[in-house]
Amino acid sequence: MGDLLEEHDLGQWRRTHYSSEISPSIGDEIVVMGWVASVRDHGNILFIILKDMHGEIQITAKKGECDDSLFELAKEVKEHSSIGIRGKVRPQEKAPNGAEIVPAEIRAFSIAKKAAPFMTQGKTSTVGIDTRLDLRAVDLRRNYLGSVFRIRQTVLNSVREFLDRQEFIEVNTPKMIATATEGGAALFPIFYYDREAFLAQSPQLYKEQLTMAFENVFEIGPIFRAEPSRTNRHLSEAISIDIERAFADYGDVMSILERMIVSIVETVKERNADDLKFLELELPAVELPFPKYSYSDLIDKLQEAGEHIQWGDDVTPQVMKSLQDDRLGGFYFIIDWPTSTKPFYVKPGSADGGRVCESFDLMFGPLEMSSGSTRINRKDQLVERMSKQGLKPDAFDYHLRVFDYGVPPHAGFGLGLERLMMALIKVENIRDTTLYPRDIDRLAP
Amino acid sequence: MGDLLEEHDLGQWRRTHYSSEISPSIGDEIVVMGWVASVRDHGNILFIILKDMHGEIQITAKKGECDDSLFELAKEVKEHSSIGIRGKVRPQEKAPNGAEIVPAEIRAFSIAKKAAPFMTQGKTSTVGIDTRLDLRAVDLRRNYLGSVFRIRQTVLNSVREFLDRQEFIEVNTPKMIATATEGGAALFPIFYYDREAFLAQSPQLYKEQLTMAFENVFEIGPIFRAEPSRTNRHLSEAISIDIERAFADYGDVMSILERMIVSIVETVKERNADDLKFLELELPAVELPFPKYSYSDLIDKLQEAGEHIQWGDDVTPQVMKSLQDDRLGGFYFIIDWPTSTKPFYVKPGSADGGRVCESFDLMFGPLEMSSGSTRINRKDQLVERMSKQGLKPDAFDYHLRVFDYGVPPHAGFGLGLERLMMALIKVENIRDTTLYPRDIDRLAP
Repeated sequence: MGDLLEEHDLGQWRRTHYSSEISPSIGDEIVVMGWVASVRDHGNILFIILKDMHGEIQITAKKGECDDSLFELAKEVKEHSSIGIRGKVRPQEKAPNGAEIVPAEIRAFSIAKKAAPFMTQGKTSTVGIDTRLDLRAVDLRRNYLGSVFRIRQTVLNSVREFLDRQEFIEVNTPKMIATATEGGAALFPIFYYDREAFLAQSPQLYKEQLTMAFENVFEIGPIFRAEPSRTNRHLSEAISIDIERAFADYGDVMSILERMIVSIVETVKERNADDLKFLELELPAVELPFPKYSYSDLIDKLQEAGEHIQWGDDVTPQVMKSLQDDRLGGFYFIIDWPTSTKPFYVKPGSADGGRVCESFDLMFGPLEMSSGSTRINRKDQLVERMSKQGLKPDAFDYHLRVFDYGVPPHAGFGLGLERLMMALIKVENIRDTTLYPRDIDRLAP
Repeated sequence: MGDLLEEHDLGQWRRTHYSSEISPSIGDEIVVMGWVASVRDHGNILFIILKDMHGEIQITAKKGECDDSLFELAKEVKEHSSIGIRGKVRPQEKAPNGAEIVPAEIRAFSIAKKAAPFMTQGKTSTVGIDTRLDLRAVDLRRNYLGSVFRIRQTVLNSVREFLDRQEFIEVNTPKMIATATEGGAALFPIFYYDREAFLAQSPQLYKEQLTMAFENVFEIGPIFRAEPSRTNRHLSEAISIDIERAFADYGDVMSILERMIVSIVETVKERNADDLKFLELELPAVELPFPKYSYSDLIDKLQEAGEHIQWGDDVTPQVMKSLQDDRLGGFYFIIDWPTSTKPFYVKPGSADGGRVCESFDLMFGPLEMSSGSTRINRKDQLVERMSKQGLKPDAFDYHLRVFDYGVPPHAGFGLGLERLMMALIKVENIRDTTLYPRDIDRLAP
């Protein structure tokens, strides 16, 4: 057996049907295209499972039934190759869609040169994540990741539809910026022509400014954090869903956030039923309103549970796990954080000399999903808070100057898309919720 | 007259109506919020035009009709301040919506401290673009820019709806990358932890890889080019609409692109009729199919027109202007470019030893909108083209290795959102099609 199978250009060939569209009743000669998910060779009969973006179709080549030279060609087809098949559809109960194709012509567009180091069927992978990420585009052919990214698509569509109904306008703010938003930690520096600049950690100051002109804005875009830790829940580049709303406070935007999450869950249930079935997954229960715990109450609870935690400390996932409270297993808010723990633009409350601020974190179990607050909308208060946090107001000149022109009261939040995906579909490693993850060790592919 | 008007927090106050929702028939007491677009003081009667995201409403304070202390307060209201008004609606033919509000309470949320250096009414601005950009959030309160960005929103929504109908999946690829896509020119370097990295000039190689798993992908996201020129049509950071499609060639994606543009134009006409009326704008005529000129024919024409241009040269906007051809005023394609002028991943044609390649630029008059092509889908051909262009295949190891696993034939394009906006709404300076432009001179705000 030689190298009979040659690589062809696409030329004038075009697919006439997707796999999932093929039913035994077609009967006609059709052309399907895709990649080879599996080949089973039983000597005188050969089964090729061809996969495309919609599903699978079985190609059955039988000695004697198809041309001898074609049968020899079919025997050379290798897994992962990109091929096209022209042939007739006939009923086959045991095959996907209840149909199979009897090939009349096979064209290889690109022949796989190596065996892939992992299988594409099944939910779990037998190899480590780094082996998969090194060959990510092939890894993404796995059914499991197909479902993950189809659900991710629904999540994003659902967010846009929800915010559109709430009359938000979508914006894009610059990712190359002159000044760190929240101090200098965890920034990636850039050479910007002859100057130093940074990659934006969040669209925070821009989205706040934009409430002056557009009132309700949202952005779905990349954020960059030079995160030094190696964990299963941090990325150096992530997608953030950021909103900001004029004439609103943190209560208003918490209400938007919880209703948005409910809307996402309902939309995924509706549009991704097949994926949820394949993943054997039930989405988290969501009921309005989400439970709200004040930071102070939570510290009391944690102290009662024996944790060595003080008022003013951060609440880490490790610490949260010590609370054996069922209501803390799903989505809930921690509100009214110490002012000292939050960035300068967060509005301190009016009670107690502003010791706590109008802020919230949305949690899912021990995992932080989102952070939001009422913002300060007056220049003198902003300058005061900057100075208290050791920031130089001069560095924020371009930001502060717009506060001379009537910035409305406003509030907003940032929601991590990848974290939300982890919560929704129980992905263990955040790297599998993004196509090409970036972390301290990984910059490629 | 002292400083009677004090700044209030939002507190429990909430807007009960948007300006545009107010009709003379309401009659009730309502609360409106927004910013002060203008104040006209006629001594015993004062008109405040309040603007919110939906429109304008007139507040009329008359001495004797409203409380004396309230009248004094109203006299202190300054343009651009962020305020809320509680009051009764009554008919007023001469006012926007045919209604005005008689104030019972005025609350200032943030008082403007300075007069803005430009007017917010009218289409044209009387000050230079740099003055406006230095105070961009205030500039964006101009009616003109409001219309521009509402149209931009429709363009993006329309693109997503169109590509969704064509069964494309939206993806996000990394913006921090290890290797330059098309050689080393015009890249922004980053410090990536302890390594050098770059900002992505395009999602090119990622979107190509993703056709292996998802077939049809698109991305709408930022691209970064260290563009050294100071022109009205270049930005250092822009939004690119990128698509890639499996089992397709450049003819197929040209067809997608022209139908997408037609769909955008129709959608803007439908959803932004008011904005187009305010801008006194007719969108460009679009008729399918768009004219196609081969590069070689165009060079002939240009030579006939007396231009000193050789086969193999780039076609610049300056050169294109010398062709006095009406059909070249709108959208048209230039196809079949010399292989030497295009990046390594563009597929050479089969004729003439591959002297021309399966490529196109979409033009609007002299302005390039989009660039696309059939791509090479085989490793050996890619390596050969890389070497010919002086690139080191080793630097592309992570990319090339996926070509061992059956990359389908594919084609795609990148379309510059800001350039498209220039074409659609005749904006002279590309900086006005983006919220916070970046160029060689500008990194803030």
